[in-house]
Amino acid sequence: MLIDFKNMPQQKLEHFKGGEGCMLAKTFSDGKNKILLAQLAPGNNVGIHKHEMNSEIVYVVSGVATIKYDGGPDEILHPGGVHYCPQDHHHAVCNEGTEILTFFAVVPEHHQ
Amino acid sequence: MLIDFKNMPQQKLEHFKGGEGCMLAKTFSDGKNKILLAQLAPGNNVGIHKHEMNSEIVYVVSGVATIKYDGGPDEILHPGGVHYCPQDHHHAVCNEGTEILTFFAVVPEHHQ
Repeated sequence: MLIDFKNMPQQKLEHFKGGEGCMLAKTFSDGKNKILLAQLAPGNNVGIHKHEMNSEIVYVVSGVATIKYDGGPDEILHPGGVHYCPQDHHHAVCNEGTEILTFFAVVPEHHQ
Repeated sequence: MLIDFKNMPQQKLEHFKGGEGCMLAKTFSDGKNKILLAQLAPGNNVGIHKHEMNSEIVYVVSGVATIKYDGGPDEILHPGGVHYCPQDHHHAVCNEGTEILTFFAVVPEHHQ
């Protein structure tokens, strides 16, 4: 099935996961997977959060993502760059760049 | 964690899922998710297969993908286009275009 982001309403999520500013997101969810296309303006971020019952895969479409993962060194992702936060790990997704960050993400639910 | 496709070996999968030609793929897997970057040359395809215990999310990076999903009309995906094959459904991924098709995919295992 097509995931038609073009005709999907966009949500404005303020201080998402305790982050600064807001994330704009178009999200499809069926209980097994969330599939989303999201944007963060410069200076905005998704706060540090642990993936307790799911995981997250991030693919950078445009802009530059700075990922804080498990307290390690920053992961800098340019377009085409991919980050994985497995279950039981934590991360934050930040836009520390000068242009809008657009990323595609999948959040599979693991239910165990 | 970064998924470093640049330094990952590429596999050549002949007649993948019974398809024509071959798929070139770089794949990360940890038992919960497969994360892959794949290429199909024009005329090549991944054959029709059912996702019994997992699902698949496809994001087209370049080229044009023609997806045959559950016997419905072809889904034509251009770069940025997204297709989802939920668990218990079937699909094929075909390159019926004139340039190499590159796609990013996530295959979450559902274990139930």
